[in-house]
Amino acid sequence: MAHDFISNFGLRGFLLLVLLALLIPKRTAAQQPALNLMPMPASVQAGTGSLRVDSSFSVVLTGHTEPRLERGVERFLEQLARQTAFPLNLKPAQYAHATLVIHTDHASKEIQEVGEDESYVLEVTTAGATLTAPTPLGTLYGLETFLQLVDVTSDGFAAPALTIQDHPRFPWRGLMIDSARHFIPLEVIRRNLNGMEAAKMNVFHWHLTDNQGFRVESKKFPKLQELGSDGLYYTQEEIRDLIAYARDRGIRVVPEFEMPGHSTAFFVGYPELASAPGPYEIDRRWGVMDPAMDPTNERTYKFLDEFIGEMAKLFADQFFHIGGDEVNGKQWDGNQKIQEYMRAHGLKNNQALQAYFSKRLQAIVAKHGKSMIGWDEILDPSLPKDVTIQSWRGPESLAAAARQGYRGILSNGYYLDLGWSAARHYAADPLSGDAANLSPEEKQRILGGESTMWTEYVSAENIDSRIWPRNAAIAERLWSPAEVRDPASMYARLDFLSPRLEWLGLTHRTCYWQMLHRIAGPAKREEFAALRTLADVVEPVKDYTREETAAVEATSLSPLNRVVDAVPLESDAGRRFGELVDKFIGTSCLDPDAGGRLRSRFTVWRDNPAKLQPLAQRSFLVNEVSVRSQDLSALAGIGLAALEAIAKRQPATDSWKSQQLAALEQMKKGKVQLLLIPVSAVQKLVEAAASGGTCASAKP
Amino acid sequence: MAHDFISNFGLRGFLLLVLLALLIPKRTAAQQPALNLMPMPASVQAGTGSLRVDSSFSVVLTGHTEPRLERGVERFLEQLARQTAFPLNLKPAQYAHATLVIHTDHASKEIQEVGEDESYVLEVTTAGATLTAPTPLGTLYGLETFLQLVDVTSDGFAAPALTIQDHPRFPWRGLMIDSARHFIPLEVIRRNLNGMEAAKMNVFHWHLTDNQGFRVESKKFPKLQELGSDGLYYTQEEIRDLIAYARDRGIRVVPEFEMPGHSTAFFVGYPELASAPGPYEIDRRWGVMDPAMDPTNERTYKFLDEFIGEMAKLFADQFFHIGGDEVNGKQWDGNQKIQEYMRAHGLKNNQALQAYFSKRLQAIVAKHGKSMIGWDEILDPSLPKDVTIQSWRGPESLAAAARQGYRGILSNGYYLDLGWSAARHYAADPLSGDAANLSPEEKQRILGGESTMWTEYVSAENIDSRIWPRNAAIAERLWSPAEVRDPASMYARLDFLSPRLEWLGLTHRTCYWQMLHRIAGPAKREEFAALRTLADVVEPVKDYTREETAAVEATSLSPLNRVVDAVPLESDAGRRFGELVDKFIGTSCLDPDAGGRLRSRFTVWRDNPAKLQPLAQRSFLVNEVSVRSQDLSALAGIGLAALEAIAKRQPATDSWKSQQLAALEQMKKGKVQLLLIPVSAVQKLVEAAASGGTCASAKP
Repeated sequence: MAHDFISNFGLRGFLLLVLLALLIPKRTAAQQPALNLMPMPASVQAGTGSLRVDSSFSVVLTGHTEPRLERGVERFLEQLARQTAFPLNLKPAQYAHATLVIHTDHASKEIQEVGEDESYVLEVTTAGATLTAPTPLGTLYGLETFLQLVDVTSDGFAAPALTIQDHPRFPWRGLMIDSARHFIPLEVIRRNLNGMEAAKMNVFHWHLTDNQGFRVESKKFPKLQELGSDGLYYTQEEIRDLIAYARDRGIRVVPEFEMPGHSTAFFVGYPELASAPGPYEIDRRWGVMDPAMDPTNERTYKFLDEFIGEMAKLFADQFFHIGGDEVNGKQWDGNQKIQEYMRAHGLKNNQALQAYFSKRLQAIVAKHGKSMIGWDEILDPSLPKDVTIQSWRGPESLAAAARQGYRGILSNGYYLDLGWSAARHYAADPLSGDAANLSPEEKQRILGGESTMWTEYVSAENIDSRIWPRNAAIAERLWSPAEVRDPASMYARLDFLSPRLEWLGLTHRTCYWQMLHRIAGPAKREEFAALRTLADVVEPVKDYTREETAAVEATSLSPLNRVVDAVPLESDAGRRFGELVDKFIGTSCLDPDAGGRLRSRFTVWRDNPAKLQPLAQRSFLVNEVSVRSQDLSALAGIGLAALEAIAKRQPATDSWKSQQLAALEQMKKGKVQLLLIPVSAVQKLVEAAASGGTCASAKP
Repeated sequence: MAHDFISNFGLRGFLLLVLLALLIPKRTAAQQPALNLMPMPASVQAGTGSLRVDSSFSVVLTGHTEPRLERGVERFLEQLARQTAFPLNLKPAQYAHATLVIHTDHASKEIQEVGEDESYVLEVTTAGATLTAPTPLGTLYGLETFLQLVDVTSDGFAAPALTIQDHPRFPWRGLMIDSARHFIPLEVIRRNLNGMEAAKMNVFHWHLTDNQGFRVESKKFPKLQELGSDGLYYTQEEIRDLIAYARDRGIRVVPEFEMPGHSTAFFVGYPELASAPGPYEIDRRWGVMDPAMDPTNERTYKFLDEFIGEMAKLFADQFFHIGGDEVNGKQWDGNQKIQEYMRAHGLKNNQALQAYFSKRLQAIVAKHGKSMIGWDEILDPSLPKDVTIQSWRGPESLAAAARQGYRGILSNGYYLDLGWSAARHYAADPLSGDAANLSPEEKQRILGGESTMWTEYVSAENIDSRIWPRNAAIAERLWSPAEVRDPASMYARLDFLSPRLEWLGLTHRTCYWQMLHRIAGPAKREEFAALRTLADVVEPVKDYTREETAAVEATSLSPLNRVVDAVPLESDAGRRFGELVDKFIGTSCLDPDAGGRLRSRFTVWRDNPAKLQPLAQRSFLVNEVSVRSQDLSALAGIGLAALEAIAKRQPATDSWKSQQLAALEQMKKGKVQLLLIPVSAVQKLVEAAASGGTCASAKP
């Protein structure tokens, strides 16, 4: 394994690895320094004392320098000023005695590549700090780490003395944003790139076309955006700016154009590309649709050659994503000419037909100097090994690709739109499952992973809260050593990072509050508090349940203004409540403080429906969730009864227990597309109440 | 008075006034419709039912139209989409059956003037809405009113059916922002212009130069910004953009260049303008400084002629503000040549010398086609009547100017930086005091008022919270009929408007929360809550006490990162607590609900220091306010004792009472530049406790 890392990261990486091995004992759970760093660096060695950060703070760039580094330092100083409110000098210092001396060895590639050296070493002493890195990429990351170190202390602002030697575990650490289903304005993309930089992610995968919209200006085929976007698209100039913005932050931009399926928006302007006659309209519905490109028509390839040629010039990155997923084949089945072509060319089924298309497409992509990447479905042994697979299906699929010689990145487990907890995303590992058994050479083909933000139920308003802060947990999984995997530590650091991310312009916390204000309308303070009490402990239903349970089919024109759209995908209050119950049970239900806090929480929940009632009468959006307010109240009643039984130190009866558990089981179900998060913790309390005075049999 | 209004507002204004007179009985406190409109329109007549607002909502412009109106409608639809989350069509409708039909009679002046017709009539029925206005100014205001009407209801989003006939009471409704003492970036200015538009303010007075900075690019005298600004200035192109941005929102931009005093920043680049030899540096301190222009040197006027000529072209508005306040005269006294000049020209004292300067300056300003405006000090009978006075001194000074034939605007009472409550600002009226006794003709010279945001202790980060929401109360004073003056109604509507202002980009609420996070550093939830508990009930010391009580002299380089910088200038929680105490006493201390809520508040406050302690140990910024946390705890102890005495229905002893009142008197004083707001309410409780069982003698 060391050998593979050497070839992957070079000698420097190997030395870091040796150091890492030496230092790992320092980072055991018990000894781990209380550093709020996220992602956790590969190695941290604590020093003594701290470096004072005041308004005299200055930075100097030595070694290799370039305008990007100067802009990076300017951004760093702006951010430092935001963290401290010091009026800092915004220009890099011109003298050697700067507080922070940066040394960058040499330039990175003109067009950022996969696997460039992103390492850095940051040393902080009481006298000053030095940051050294082989390339500007490492320098930029080191600056982010320094920013996370600076905090208020008993004696002013300071960064602790320490030595950090850091490099990423995987070279591909991406976030995908779907700008097709809901258009996402550039300012929103930009602030998410700010967040990616803070989390040390380095690939922005831009899902630019789908059935619901074509979001890029094509000068060769202008009907693509003119007819396929409702006027909501990015101009080529805007895209060039965005790519430059990303490059400034060490982030590659990989564009995705979905084909042969998920491509209705192509057909609105160019119906001749499809496998069935037009006309076509922009699709407003979600899901897998029938329209697909005609892989048997040479005009399709002529079009794609010109189109990809244009886009390959616009997007500088080496990788070019062609989608390739979820073709249902109905248009192919129904087209006589296509069926004849398949027979004539020995293409046995639709899978073979898609493989034929992928091969032709790969040749075009390669002709324009790019390396093709696509979703699992494109995988076919007939494709050259240059192709990279992005796996939404899972580690097995990824491992299979690696065994066949293909490179791959994992997205299964990192679907932000499914509403999983940060801990669940955090546990997903590109080298777990089948991949854990790969040979070292095969493992190297697994480049990393990408979180994906599909936007069926995500708008420009709430997208930040669907991505952050959970995305930072995924970023840590892809950057930090595999051994860094304690969810409690992750959550503690996430709680720290989350408000700081708003300093970068992200709105994941404030949008919740603003959307609740819209839902409430003019409300008294206590009425709004009652809405907040409920909203704080619910989460949207998980996975694809929202589509399955919609009363009316949602479309891209449905307003996203309900409680389910406003609440975070993971409830902090729900998680904390669960921890409190575990703590209480962990003390054999004897801790009076935890017991008292539980009781007071339950009392608030029990009494909440009456407080929410006036709002529910005035606002249809509050009225919709009254049913969950009633459930929360009933839940609290069960919780209070369980606490009372526990206080008596007499086991509750079996019939009581089974009644309560049955009631809780009902509450566990999604209603109005919301889950009531505290249910499972209350189930534990009921078990505890039924287990007798010591709570002994109830496991936290 | 009717006659004056006719000449002022034209026949339309007169008719509106007649309508207003007819309608005023409809708006008595008891009958006032529960409309969350701010400023309250001149007249509102309730209708029946409401107009549903859904994603089919559309707007059509008829009558006079212009690109500004189209942009205004686009902005309106964007804002409506934000309020409802509907994906609304962003282009004005092209058909007659739009939901909202707008008719504008004719264009307004190419360069907006004081006293243009800003009226509009808005009629909402269940079938649709019409907005008619003589000029685009009224149209834009009508759109703002419509936005305030739209809210969530039991049956979707809707606007109530009604007829509004509206026009402003005063033609000059301004906000001044001081960009000199702290540089305020353009994006911050822009979002404040958004807020002004929502509050129907129409003058942005831009304080661009002072001892601490020269913030405008001069191409004729580039050393002004190059040496006088630390690189923090607005380019001419940026200023032109900002003026266009303001015009789009019906806002005039009046620039201010401070002279002959408050002008050190001029002298850094051009010391020859001063009355004492240079060199000069940018001043970092606050207050009145000695440097002043030399009014006896012809070179001064030559410079000002060229400079004002350049600026008069850049700033389109008719008015040109030359400052003119707070010259201490020391440089004049100490300059032999100036003294000789004064003797030679019969200028008896410095006041006469300044009058001489003002006269010369007025001629230059007039030569460049502008009308001069300045602070009280410029007032001198020798000046032509074209001059306008901005009064920081007060209504007497303003009335005196009006009697002498000068126009004036009131700023005394509207100094946002003094930290007054919204209610206190709201009570200040340009036509009160001496001005109430002016003749109708003299009254007409009082054009309105301006709130002023001086930035000694205000940065780009916290400026929104220093201006908003209180500024909306001042805006209402200047727009709405004088009879609209109930503070309770004002606060209720302000509570509604305040979160909505954040949809316009303002950060007055979120910045509080973000700054507290910086102060706390990494904190547990309950630790942060303890900081919030304290911060919610303190306010910065008022008026100029902060300067007087600073431990170390503050300068423009001092970080504004303390609790005093983070907390709002008016404590909502403090105000509500006072209301709760009044309510309790108002029921002869018998209301158990109010009593219970008081007790629980006191208990939280009493126990707060222990909860805050860990943070105070870790953060010097929290540690600083520990002393106030102790006070709050002691205050709560007194409050609990008072409640206990009241519960016994036995008058507390006189000695107890005087002891408690003496302790409270001590707590009332500012410490660490913070006031503890609940003190006066607790004083009332102590009085109530001492007055015997019925609380009879304690007046709420």
